[in-house]
Amino acid sequence: MESTRGYGVGPSPLFRNCTKEAGRSNQFDRFLMHALLRGLGIPNIRIILWDDSEFCLSDKATVGVRINSRMALLRLLANPLAYFGDDYSAGNLEVEGGLVPFLETVLGAMSRPGQVRRRSRSMGLICRPGRNTLTRSRNNVHHHYDLGNDFYRLWLDQEMQYTCAYFPDAALSIEQAQEAKMELVCRKLRLKKGDRVVEAGCGWGGLARYMAKCYGAKVRAFNISREQVAYARETARREGIEGVEYVEDDYRNITGTCDAFVSVGMLEHVGPGQYRQLGAVIDRTLTDRGMGLIHTIGQNVAEPMSDWIEKRIFPGSYPPTVREMMEIFEPNGLSLLDLENLRLHYAKTLQHWLARFENNSSRIARMFDESFVRAWRLYLASSIASFEVGTLQLYQAVFARSASNDVPWTRDHLRVR
Amino acid sequence: MESTRGYGVGPSPLFRNCTKEAGRSNQFDRFLMHALLRGLGIPNIRIILWDDSEFCLSDKATVGVRINSRMALLRLLANPLAYFGDDYSAGNLEVEGGLVPFLETVLGAMSRPGQVRRRSRSMGLICRPGRNTLTRSRNNVHHHYDLGNDFYRLWLDQEMQYTCAYFPDAALSIEQAQEAKMELVCRKLRLKKGDRVVEAGCGWGGLARYMAKCYGAKVRAFNISREQVAYARETARREGIEGVEYVEDDYRNITGTCDAFVSVGMLEHVGPGQYRQLGAVIDRTLTDRGMGLIHTIGQNVAEPMSDWIEKRIFPGSYPPTVREMMEIFEPNGLSLLDLENLRLHYAKTLQHWLARFENNSSRIARMFDESFVRAWRLYLASSIASFEVGTLQLYQAVFARSASNDVPWTRDHLRVR
Repeated sequence: MESTRGYGVGPSPLFRNCTKEAGRSNQFDRFLMHALLRGLGIPNIRIILWDDSEFCLSDKATVGVRINSRMALLRLLANPLAYFGDDYSAGNLEVEGGLVPFLETVLGAMSRPGQVRRRSRSMGLICRPGRNTLTRSRNNVHHHYDLGNDFYRLWLDQEMQYTCAYFPDAALSIEQAQEAKMELVCRKLRLKKGDRVVEAGCGWGGLARYMAKCYGAKVRAFNISREQVAYARETARREGIEGVEYVEDDYRNITGTCDAFVSVGMLEHVGPGQYRQLGAVIDRTLTDRGMGLIHTIGQNVAEPMSDWIEKRIFPGSYPPTVREMMEIFEPNGLSLLDLENLRLHYAKTLQHWLARFENNSSRIARMFDESFVRAWRLYLASSIASFEVGTLQLYQAVFARSASNDVPWTRDHLRVR
Repeated sequence: MESTRGYGVGPSPLFRNCTKEAGRSNQFDRFLMHALLRGLGIPNIRIILWDDSEFCLSDKATVGVRINSRMALLRLLANPLAYFGDDYSAGNLEVEGGLVPFLETVLGAMSRPGQVRRRSRSMGLICRPGRNTLTRSRNNVHHHYDLGNDFYRLWLDQEMQYTCAYFPDAALSIEQAQEAKMELVCRKLRLKKGDRVVEAGCGWGGLARYMAKCYGAKVRAFNISREQVAYARETARREGIEGVEYVEDDYRNITGTCDAFVSVGMLEHVGPGQYRQLGAVIDRTLTDRGMGLIHTIGQNVAEPMSDWIEKRIFPGSYPPTVREMMEIFEPNGLSLLDLENLRLHYAKTLQHWLARFENNSSRIARMFDESFVRAWRLYLASSIASFEVGTLQLYQAVFARSASNDVPWTRDHLRVR
């Protein structure tokens, strides 16, 4: 099962059975560590080697990484973003002082001015995601989302929302914050009873159910993940929700028209080469006075995802810059009406998920294996760190046709009364 | 005076003393009118020639244009966007059914899908604004803004705000709506007492005075228009407002640091080639936890301003697309936090201005001449039409450094309590 799905540490024997180095570290290892730290923008971290020798360029480092072999050190030096993940998953690296603070320190240093170009170049060499064709998209989605509903149920909220929640109050539970997100989306779309909605990429169908149940909308929700669609249909049937139809198909095959077009957490998987085509789908679908909303992870510098995330976690994924997102709207006669950056809400959402994930880690290890748990822990923690240091953003973009004057005058309609 | 300032119908004898054609129109004229209408995307308008013969491709046209000579007809055919303005200003064209509805009909047809490319191409040939160097910027600004405070006082609000107002209530007066705009800007920046503000392009200084007076901010406001700076200084002195300093200098020469960077209505005059440089100015000026706001006219299709606007009204002006605006932020480590499109507020603002302008038109004709009045009437009316049909947008973009986590969690701070 592991080899076909490709999660965990992957098939390469490079990262397996890597026992702790027996010999002592030497002057050359010190040289390598220095080079590694410089390559990372001199983050304020400790490096501890297999013989417990420590290396640090500052005496105030509160976080560090323990490297158990010279091979792992060499791999980190060759490509930290590609190999840290695999070696961490395999247990060849251990982090001290907390995984999230460690990653924040490293990612913060790497994203400092002057570091950006170097990072971008080295990553360009190793990670060139191919074009997301219909088949490739289906395979990519299968890789990530069809890991099993039982797995995601262990750490997502009850409605299985696997996108950024909204915390108008920091003390909200993840369930409350996910509902607040759905409510915010509906308000931004000025949704009303009877509105025909098309949802592109509906996950486990929570937003579509909410729109039908709470707003009386007629929703057609598209998704290419078979397991998610089956779950969504069964849940709507069990809850007796009418007015929502789940369609197992690609966004490119959307037909018919709608008053509101919504897509939450799909654009990350579309790929910049297909943005214009997505906009053309919206253009042929949206009525003249309709409004739309796209909710997506984004970034400020056009860089591919780290090689490890792309290979092990999210094949085919890419977070757009705002500049790139405009390719959806500008060539297709659509106007951006409102854009909100909810970056820190995603850090908070991920903290909730990671806490639940940790509470269920032994169960997840039994479902998969220990390296899978470590890989997903790293993925969730590095996502928190990326949103905290600002290398990832979360955009909600509201749009309408350029010529539509049936658009909100103010933001009063967003207020929860 | 006219020739040095270049306003009005300009120096070309082509548009002068153009008497009404004596002869009757013929089959060839009809052919030309047909070609003209097709070139414009077949707008639903009447064309009436010098001999009162009418031409219309629909029987429901409520607006039309009266053309008083074959030369004017030929010029319109050659380049409607370049010559309509000059021939209208010279009185060689008269519009029936209302200038704004007429322009909305024509601009609406020209911006329909399929028309965009043709428009863009024909305009690309005739209008290539040069790079806005320090000297050129000063000349451009002088052309438009130094027409005299007495002129602008006749149709702007009392604080001389020459940018889009904000109408949370459609019944607000222009004075109230301009104050609401300034308040909205201050709220978006979360301005507080003692904050150091840099304003790039301060017009007659109203926003700087508001920030100092109502928020206790310390404002340094930059502008290269000598007349505007003199007015701003005198007004602040007369009103006894402390904490505001008006600097007659270019945004590229801004020095020092600030907690908030604001620019309302300047970006239109910066030119896309200088956006990255503007971002670098912000990058060297803004504190680590500071926030900024840029308020600008924009558009969805990257096209130059019409040749006539560029030549007679606003030399060097260019409204950016959102994609182009991102050149300010993304390469300079800045994150877009919030973008609001206030397009229809600008149409409403311009309606107020045009009404006041018309109330003072005979006085303005005495200050300049009748062709000046007609040119500015056309400029204000075509701006209303452009915002109404969506060929122009109005963006307020709030930003901060990518790594700053001192950013708003929600939009609660925008509410007027």
